[in-house]
Amino acid sequence: MKLRRSGRLVDMTHYLLQNPQTLVPLSYFADRYQSAKSSISEDLGIIKQTFEQQGIGSLLTIPGAAGGVKYIPYTGLEEATQFIEELSELIAKPDRLLPGGYLYMTDILGNPKLLNKIGKMFATAFKDTKVDIIMTMATKGIPLAHAVASYLDVPVVIVRRDSRVTEGSTVSINYVSGSSKRIQTMLLAKRSLETGSNVLIIDDFMKAGGTVNGMVNLLAEFQANVAGIGVLVESENVEERLVEDYISLVKLENVNERDRQIEVNPGNFLTVMSKSNE
Amino acid sequence: MKLRRSGRLVDMTHYLLQNPQTLVPLSYFADRYQSAKSSISEDLGIIKQTFEQQGIGSLLTIPGAAGGVKYIPYTGLEEATQFIEELSELIAKPDRLLPGGYLYMTDILGNPKLLNKIGKMFATAFKDTKVDIIMTMATKGIPLAHAVASYLDVPVVIVRRDSRVTEGSTVSINYVSGSSKRIQTMLLAKRSLETGSNVLIIDDFMKAGGTVNGMVNLLAEFQANVAGIGVLVESENVEERLVEDYISLVKLENVNERDRQIEVNPGNFLTVMSKSNE
Repeated sequence: MKLRRSGRLVDMTHYLLQNPQTLVPLSYFADRYQSAKSSISEDLGIIKQTFEQQGIGSLLTIPGAAGGVKYIPYTGLEEATQFIEELSELIAKPDRLLPGGYLYMTDILGNPKLLNKIGKMFATAFKDTKVDIIMTMATKGIPLAHAVASYLDVPVVIVRRDSRVTEGSTVSINYVSGSSKRIQTMLLAKRSLETGSNVLIIDDFMKAGGTVNGMVNLLAEFQANVAGIGVLVESENVEERLVEDYISLVKLENVNERDRQIEVNPGNFLTVMSKSNE
Repeated sequence: MKLRRSGRLVDMTHYLLQNPQTLVPLSYFADRYQSAKSSISEDLGIIKQTFEQQGIGSLLTIPGAAGGVKYIPYTGLEEATQFIEELSELIAKPDRLLPGGYLYMTDILGNPKLLNKIGKMFATAFKDTKVDIIMTMATKGIPLAHAVASYLDVPVVIVRRDSRVTEGSTVSINYVSGSSKRIQTMLLAKRSLETGSNVLIIDDFMKAGGTVNGMVNLLAEFQANVAGIGVLVESENVEERLVEDYISLVKLENVNERDRQIEVNPGNFLTVMSKSNE
């Protein structure tokens, strides 16, 4: 359909936002709007400038015959700092505290706008990492993993604690829960992960890291690689942590069940981001 | 930040897409870009025309002091028909067939772009319904429910089969699984749903409807209302179905395990949509 510049800008913005991390040839837009490539180029210049200025992300232009344009979702450092502060305040509410030092986070993990922002943050953290697929643990990690996946444009696989007929055959491992020291089982549908995949592990909560470490071991069974690890909340841990290399948005410290107090501080996200920007 | 029309169009499109079903006062945009309301009005006219022409959705303008503009995501009938055909082909692959007439759908429910389209379809079906919150059953329904939620801008609550410490206190009911006739338990965190809420039930698969019917009964325990029921796949059922009023995207018929054949037809979505458009 033939569109004027103003209409093209609206439609191209929608198209790029719906297709992050995807190389779109200029000819695709030229055909879509029956416009000259030079006009499309100018449109993309305007979109790029606005995306970067307004903190929507960046627009990568790849020249040549096989080239095109790619939208890379990106949360700027200033916006990220502000969001982590908001998130910390939200999490620090004393009525979230549950027996055992756990936190009620169902409302946060059920809120599409918050998930959207969190998803974009992790997509920012792993934007230069080769990720083929995201892995998470049922149930709480699922909305989080999908929020990240929609920005990285990769599928999600879900690790479960029990087997379901609808999964087909599965691969299972036993692992030791880091905090409770209990032996547990986790399993993944056999046909859900290909050998050699680069897998980003996303989870909502990490205490000692037993579950995340279990997922790392499960990946080894599939001969797949750990591309990265991202957790929303890491909890202060007196004992040894089983996982070293991860990115967290917030960190719980001094959880006092008796006095119903939680201290919430920023995770390592901002530190890692500042370093990679240097 | 002061922006010219071209930049405003890009940024407003992004803003509206990120905030569906939300009334945005014209003054918000006027302040955001330091522009006159008359210019903003013209911008919105261009966006409205492009959104409707390109099948992105509709832009509702509410006049007056308390007015503004609201983006309503909407999948047109033609696009919906085409997508349901694609989905049917994808589901009809014989290697999806699992013992007991179940289907392997993990790949579909793990694909962010497919989920996005499915979510927009259900948001279209329930765009004129008052929905406060979406309810689904762990595990498979979760990505689907969140895809719908992001277009309706409402939170998601998850019903589970087992209790977790991180949920706090819960309300549980027993229900009879429609197809296996077994008694099962489902439960929901007590603080996750308010009395009087209008709840949209979303699930991936419905056979006899035992699970969905269980969720309806659980809602009664919370004195909440059923705003609607949406299922991705309904399965042909020889016996009586426990749920009558629902919307489905596709329908399985003549599932033949021995010959590994599945017949996939459109669900009632298109029929319901055509009627509501008359």
